[in-house]
Amino acid sequence: MSKFKGVVPPVVTPLNDDFTVDYKSYTRVLEHLIEAGCHGVFVLGSTSEVVFHDEKTRREIIEHSAKVVNGRVPLLVGTIDATTDRVIAHSQIARAAGADAVVVTAPFYTVTSQSEILDHFRYIRDAVDVPLVAYDIPVCVHVKLLRQTVVTLAKEGTIIGLKDSSGDDGNFRYALLDLADHKDVFLMTGSEIVVDNALLMGAHGVVPGIANVDPHGYVRLWDAAQRGDWVAARREQERLCRLFEIVWVAQGRVSGGASGIGAFKAAMKSLGIIDTAIMPRPRAPLNAEEAARIDGILRETGLLQI
Amino acid sequence: MSKFKGVVPPVVTPLNDDFTVDYKSYTRVLEHLIEAGCHGVFVLGSTSEVVFHDEKTRREIIEHSAKVVNGRVPLLVGTIDATTDRVIAHSQIARAAGADAVVVTAPFYTVTSQSEILDHFRYIRDAVDVPLVAYDIPVCVHVKLLRQTVVTLAKEGTIIGLKDSSGDDGNFRYALLDLADHKDVFLMTGSEIVVDNALLMGAHGVVPGIANVDPHGYVRLWDAAQRGDWVAARREQERLCRLFEIVWVAQGRVSGGASGIGAFKAAMKSLGIIDTAIMPRPRAPLNAEEAARIDGILRETGLLQI
Amino acid sequence: MSKFKGVVPPVVTPLNDDFTVDYKSYTRVLEHLIEAGCHGVFVLGSTSEVVFHDEKTRREIIEHSAKVVNGRVPLLVGTIDATTDRVIAHSQIARAAGADAVVVTAPFYTVTSQSEILDHFRYIRDAVDVPLVAYDIPVCVHVKLLRQTVVTLAKEGTIIGLKDSSGDDGNFRYALLDLADHKDVFLMTGSEIVVDNALLMGAHGVVPGIANVDPHGYVRLWDAAQRGDWVAARREQERLCRLFEIVWVAQGRVSGGASGIGAFKAAMKSLGIIDTAIMPRPRAPLNAEEAARIDGILRETGLLQI
Amino acid sequence: MSKFKGVVPPVVTPLNDDFTVDYKSYTRVLEHLIEAGCHGVFVLGSTSEVVFHDEKTRREIIEHSAKVVNGRVPLLVGTIDATTDRVIAHSQIARAAGADAVVVTAPFYTVTSQSEILDHFRYIRDAVDVPLVAYDIPVCVHVKLLRQTVVTLAKEGTIIGLKDSSGDDGNFRYALLDLADHKDVFLMTGSEIVVDNALLMGAHGVVPGIANVDPHGYVRLWDAAQRGDWVAARREQERLCRLFEIVWVAQGRVSGGASGIGAFKAAMKSLGIIDTAIMPRPRAPLNAEEAARIDGILRETGLLQI
Repeated sequence: MSKFKGVVPPVVTPLNDDFTVDYKSYTRVLEHLIEAGCHGVFVLGSTSEVVFHDEKTRREIIEHSAKVVNGRVPLLVGTIDATTDRVIAHSQIARAAGADAVVVTAPFYTVTSQSEILDHFRYIRDAVDVPLVAYDIPVCVHVKLLRQTVVTLAKEGTIIGLKDSSGDDGNFRYALLDLADHKDVFLMTGSEIVVDNALLMGAHGVVPGIANVDPHGYVRLWDAAQRGDWVAARREQERLCRLFEIVWVAQGRVSGGASGIGAFKAAMKSLGIIDTAIMPRPRAPLNAEEAARIDGILRETGLLQI
Repeated sequence: MSKFKGVVPPVVTPLNDDFTVDYKSYTRVLEHLIEAGCHGVFVLGSTSEVVFHDEKTRREIIEHSAKVVNGRVPLLVGTIDATTDRVIAHSQIARAAGADAVVVTAPFYTVTSQSEILDHFRYIRDAVDVPLVAYDIPVCVHVKLLRQTVVTLAKEGTIIGLKDSSGDDGNFRYALLDLADHKDVFLMTGSEIVVDNALLMGAHGVVPGIANVDPHGYVRLWDAAQRGDWVAARREQERLCRLFEIVWVAQGRVSGGASGIGAFKAAMKSLGIIDTAIMPRPRAPLNAEEAARIDGILRETGLLQI
Repeated sequence: MSKFKGVVPPVVTPLNDDFTVDYKSYTRVLEHLIEAGCHGVFVLGSTSEVVFHDEKTRREIIEHSAKVVNGRVPLLVGTIDATTDRVIAHSQIARAAGADAVVVTAPFYTVTSQSEILDHFRYIRDAVDVPLVAYDIPVCVHVKLLRQTVVTLAKEGTIIGLKDSSGDDGNFRYALLDLADHKDVFLMTGSEIVVDNALLMGAHGVVPGIANVDPHGYVRLWDAAQRGDWVAARREQERLCRLFEIVWVAQGRVSGGASGIGAFKAAMKSLGIIDTAIMPRPRAPLNAEEAARIDGILRETGLLQI
Repeated sequence: MSKFKGVVPPVVTPLNDDFTVDYKSYTRVLEHLIEAGCHGVFVLGSTSEVVFHDEKTRREIIEHSAKVVNGRVPLLVGTIDATTDRVIAHSQIARAAGADAVVVTAPFYTVTSQSEILDHFRYIRDAVDVPLVAYDIPVCVHVKLLRQTVVTLAKEGTIIGLKDSSGDDGNFRYALLDLADHKDVFLMTGSEIVVDNALLMGAHGVVPGIANVDPHGYVRLWDAAQRGDWVAARREQERLCRLFEIVWVAQGRVSGGASGIGAFKAAMKSLGIIDTAIMPRPRAPLNAEEAARIDGILRETGLLQI
């Protein structure tokens, strides 16, 4: 199996009041994840609010992450941008700064075909000497990486893996089946709430945003699945599903994006992992009443005492 | 009425073989538009393939445009990016480089609410001393600027105008009605094929991509509408509709984006306005057979002789 | 030009408290429309809440309509159902009951291709000896009648016309251009708020739901357009746009369908055209506060005195 | 646990050349399913092409099914129509004809809110003395039964269960968790390709269309899950996933609906279960080349010898 596997959280990026990165808190997040037994970290993904950071900040985040992680686990880096050459530029920086692999979406803002998506990944492969992971996230880029696209890219060696945040579990399963003989390819799900299912289907890893809040839970879930104890896996997953309900606490008042990552930050602040729950503009942070409801859920799920 | 009005084409960006901007051709495009009587130019919009250009190239394009235009007509500049602070950075550069106004979309990649869109425009207004135009383009950003959002921003003075590329003519009409007493606000349609309608409704301007190919046609259409000759306006529009069919020649083989702007470039090359029809990666250019079909349409619509 | 032309309202179906059709009110609606100078009536369309009526009621509505209309204007009848053979059955009944033409959507509930849509209309044409009008209403059937589909069906003589409720004015214009030489084909828009535009483009008729409330306004708009007075047409349209805002009064509290047709009924009740504003289940009627706000709009637009 | 549980296939409806139901074949389908150990049958669902049948045919299908099934397993009957009162009429007929429960979607054709959906189910509950099952199938009705809607209806006793064909496994899981204490409620998935997952999550039953072709496979999968052998469940599911690829053989040439159910019929004809693979109009049947490719898949998955 690939060295990329297991629980690989997309790392939350805590901010200072002036919207710069709070690196002291950020270091604590990385240590929290690695100490809990996570098998890798994914920085500058959607959960990291990657598109809010300018080029300079992205580079600093990668360099800081590489220094903190220091080879203890693989470092995956999102090099997410709207068009091919901009992704290439980010990817060259990520490689130089110590990324073990870069994670790349389909082009966005523009309307894109599957044929262009194939070319997009091939141009990047040719331009940068770093392993590529495809990132299927139609809710952000508004196009799906079709089964045939993923399988073609994996079989020809353009990509070494997939992070599937499409919510289309059936399609994910077919990709697993189509690539069953390609032992070096790793397929990971971005779904937080059906991880036991994904592992039963044979997924090689999981990238759950809420593992920022409770990495131990996902490591236990992974371990249960590895030993074939699906009843324990399900039980752990169900507790994590209850925890995941924090993402809907502010829904309606703020956008879905702000509600979800805002909830992660509010919970991590309550748990003492980060110092503030600042959100990048134009996202509004959660308010005190919402934070209190999140604390209630943290208590019910055993994360917060009293 | 605002100084921003009339035919304001979104300027195509011609490229060299190495994907750098072909400034010699680009200068010819600007001269071609101004000489035809266009009332403004809009650079770094979707038709300019803005998201394909890096920060340095964007700055050069604005500076080059400002030098060529030299105050003859207003220069509108797209400062399009996924998040508020990145738009602010682009807008500060655009202002310094000579933009008369900047054109801003809703945030993209992230999922965004109308409330966040309001804040987005207000943060930009506060940060940059340059007039703001809202750009409604749901096909790219996947959220619509609702009537109430546009009207609120216009009435409070955050934006001075709107470019509506949503295709929702009814909603555009209601914005015109709601803002009828705000003479300083200008509302422009991005639709190429119903410009006569938009002008009959009272639109202050039009931003037709295909005016890169035939600016004279749109100026004639504008003039006919100004003198109330709706029959002539319709006749001109119908010829331009026939011309607009070039955008579908390559559809199916390449993506919609590549098919449309690729057709503009192929036609402009045939007409001698630009030297190449290179497309930025991963977009593929049109092929010879498609270019020949486009030439056929250029002949039928009177743009190409023999 | 076809005998089908001009203002052809989709007739609202008033109900009794027990949800049966209130034929006394219904007769008044038809007389109201014909006396105002409407050029045809369209019964059992979406505005008539066609899918709420069972087979027996549909037949009675057609027979009653034919008796009242009595050849004074053409009677168009929606024979809307999910699949081909069910539409054929409705169409045979409509023909026998006196329909001058039947109006048919694409299949729905099932997922349908353009090729199946072509076959759908051809099977119906072969089975029933009555003129067919295509009804493009993607908001209900969730598939668009593509330009090529409409043009093919019209050129081969399968359909004699189109009612376009898709909101895609550009596509409608291309259908008009493609069929300009087919003088016997009539193309009508279902849009209430851009009727002046549609007529400037050359539309042969309009099917505005809100003409149930104010038929005189649409007849004036039509007459102005016929004599080429586009300024008067626009002015009338703008008043009707203000009137049309009644459809949003209840939005949010009830569904969009209930809010729109519920508003028509509430307004028609206030104007004394119908006796009740009952809605078919599960739609809820508008409440008193909403009806009062609608009365306010009726006053502002000159329909209700004091 | 409810008497409704286990493998409950949505029964395919074979047709004669004249599009009437081929009851001889239909009887064989029912016997084939019951003999294989299925725990119930669901007639007049989407797989049964319910919307293609008129009222008389629907009644005959229910009566015939009741006679054949004869109480050996529960008989679920789809009473699918666009509006409340039409569903009530179908449901009264179904009850009289011997249905053990009726299966009801949200309203369609009309645009519907969650509040109207709640009322829809409550009106039906009040009008018909037969257990109600909610059918979540947004691909057909274009609205999702939200978690809160399903849970409210189940807790108040309006529905006794859910058939979830939405593909939203996460939402399905939350419904399972929310209703964990309501032992009399049964939640079934309509997904064919992630049945092992659904059962691991605690689903009470499965409604796989392709069980018409291979009911033994789904019964084995169910049995493996019941004894906690998730490895065997997964292995069986993976074979069935390979079989399920028959649904895409004709895709592109015919619509998705025709391709899927057409493939079921072609396979069942090859296996001798039904006599023809006729499709209702306007759906086209699969052609010989497609049928041959389906036979290839039937051989690979062990269903067809030589």
